[in-house]
Amino acid sequence: MLDFEFYNPTRIVFGRNTIPRLADLVPQAARVLVLYGGESARKNGTLDEVKAALGDRDVAEFGGIEPNPTFETLMKAVEQVRREGRDFLLAVGGGSVIDGTKFVAAAVPFEGDPWSILETHGANVERALPLASVLTLPATGSEMNKGSVITRRATTSKLAFLSDHCFPQFSILDPTKTFTLPARQVANGVADAFTHVVEQYLTYPVGALVQDRFAESLLQTLIEIGPKAVAAPADYDLRANLMWTATLALNGLIGAGVPQDWATHMIGHELTAAHGIDHARTLAVVLPSLLRDRRAAKRGKLLQYAERVWGITDGTEDARINAAIARTEDFFHGLGIRTRLADYGLDAAAIDPLVAQLEAHGMTAIGEHGDITPTVSRRILEAAL
Amino acid sequence: MLDFEFYNPTRIVFGRNTIPRLADLVPQAARVLVLYGGESARKNGTLDEVKAALGDRDVAEFGGIEPNPTFETLMKAVEQVRREGRDFLLAVGGGSVIDGTKFVAAAVPFEGDPWSILETHGANVERALPLASVLTLPATGSEMNKGSVITRRATTSKLAFLSDHCFPQFSILDPTKTFTLPARQVANGVADAFTHVVEQYLTYPVGALVQDRFAESLLQTLIEIGPKAVAAPADYDLRANLMWTATLALNGLIGAGVPQDWATHMIGHELTAAHGIDHARTLAVVLPSLLRDRRAAKRGKLLQYAERVWGITDGTEDARINAAIARTEDFFHGLGIRTRLADYGLDAAAIDPLVAQLEAHGMTAIGEHGDITPTVSRRILEAAL
Repeated sequence: MLDFEFYNPTRIVFGRNTIPRLADLVPQAARVLVLYGGESARKNGTLDEVKAALGDRDVAEFGGIEPNPTFETLMKAVEQVRREGRDFLLAVGGGSVIDGTKFVAAAVPFEGDPWSILETHGANVERALPLASVLTLPATGSEMNKGSVITRRATTSKLAFLSDHCFPQFSILDPTKTFTLPARQVANGVADAFTHVVEQYLTYPVGALVQDRFAESLLQTLIEIGPKAVAAPADYDLRANLMWTATLALNGLIGAGVPQDWATHMIGHELTAAHGIDHARTLAVVLPSLLRDRRAAKRGKLLQYAERVWGITDGTEDARINAAIARTEDFFHGLGIRTRLADYGLDAAAIDPLVAQLEAHGMTAIGEHGDITPTVSRRILEAAL
Repeated sequence: MLDFEFYNPTRIVFGRNTIPRLADLVPQAARVLVLYGGESARKNGTLDEVKAALGDRDVAEFGGIEPNPTFETLMKAVEQVRREGRDFLLAVGGGSVIDGTKFVAAAVPFEGDPWSILETHGANVERALPLASVLTLPATGSEMNKGSVITRRATTSKLAFLSDHCFPQFSILDPTKTFTLPARQVANGVADAFTHVVEQYLTYPVGALVQDRFAESLLQTLIEIGPKAVAAPADYDLRANLMWTATLALNGLIGAGVPQDWATHMIGHELTAAHGIDHARTLAVVLPSLLRDRRAAKRGKLLQYAERVWGITDGTEDARINAAIARTEDFFHGLGIRTRLADYGLDAAAIDPLVAQLEAHGMTAIGEHGDITPTVSRRILEAAL
């Protein structure tokens, strides 16, 4: 097992009818800014529920945070918070709204150019406003971690930052709030959570027995319930299991003490930034191709994945690895997610600019061994055409 | 899945050579009291390492916290903290020292009779001194939870309390610190952690898929490494896996959103309080007998336990349940722990006083259904003779 530090102070309040708990979880004297995305939060009544629970606190709103939240939009929220003297940020939405709220929380008290928070990946964040969330979309795990991914429209950059100051103080997870989600978003959430687990698991063995078994537990659960949860919008148990699984997929627990490989995310981010493809769909394109390319370096864990997650025990080692990667692709297909670049209208001409952007963002030595160079990223993308 | 709240702000610092991290984790101006148990912490050098890391901070010591820490001993630490104006408590030891330190942390600022903290099970705790730990014995999970069990010698009472104010701020887990432990203590730790998992798992199904799989992951890991870790004192990987597994067995995670059954612990506490039997050994006596008695109420989960944890799939349902309970007993035996009351010199005459003490402590409706009455507890103890 590798040495590690694990810290996660976010309070999770999970279950039906938990939004009224805001009344005791948000400080009474707080000057709250409620941040949200599109109009669905208003139309489905969640925003009204939130405001009712906040009672007579001083509450303002900031709407319009987009999927893949942008620096340009969020800086307007930063200005509003500073102008109005807001001191508590409440995100109502999915990972994009929560990620965006973390950026606003760090940017408001930041001295200097807030974009440098992304450029330093959070190393220069020394404080942040308190924030919390009401989660409506199980996917990214942002509700219980310290990470955030922000896009700068002007430069087509999509970068991540991490800071201990940006954990939500609490997150309210009410699975019934997912009942009105479009199937496409639920499917994306399943694929995103699945890939988060794989990126902390499919590296090389370090004898971390519990971390491996926990990761396999999450993958088995997503395989068991993912397609069903997409198909059955109002099944509480399915949505509850999906919601908690997606949170645990990226709250730091399964990644503590093991190598990690975030190359699929890094390459995927460029696809989203350049072509607007849904985040989860970029992962479903890159992951199988990356696993095929890195099969030598990942051999031990690929065989473990084949056996323990997919129950594949017959055939040669290579046949088992091939079968496991094929099952992974089938899993994405079963969610209604396509896994080739051509499915999204891209051909070989797209690859040069994507590799150039990876280089521009310093992504020249990614993966658990730091050996996914631009040359390897190109090969992975070419094999995904 | 049941509704739940999960909150755990303890920072875990895990790995070799982590004690020097105290230099940055303990506030520079802290007036520290280091609490420990017997002289082993001094003899094996851990206490010196701790004091070296604390540098020129104002540090005092309080030694002599016993296994099953007593109110009587701990009140002396409370007096020392008050007298010397200590403001940071650092536990160096296993679960008993950490449990005791939590009590001291809550008792120092408490107004009124501190024993009432136990009588109310922590409901009256409104504040506590900051505390942290250096763990030397993997077993109880106290290093990453808010619980504590204290014994009052004068009344032979062993009671628990819980408080959000009593989470350690951080815990340092260096697996090499376990290398000098007696085998008996390591075996006890494995049995204690195993039972913690079982008490949060073997109840009735509520469709909490991840919690079940995480619990099974911990049980499988303890079965895989427990006896080996007892036999190989200086195997880092075994001890590291044991240490992290024991922490995760009782940090709130696997118990979130599922029913819990702490009856084995409650009955076991009376055996320790009355007869001084090691805590873990009381669990190994009570658990198999309790599972046999409650086989109807626990039927669904016992079958799941048989199949997923022990790989038992052949035979009638009853045969599979019998086999799983027998394997559980064999597991304890494989650790060198005996599982009958007679093995500890007790006969039928011991049972009346034990049942009377359960009644005196209000333990008259325990278990996940609250249906383990004194009559049932008596039956469980009689079957364990």
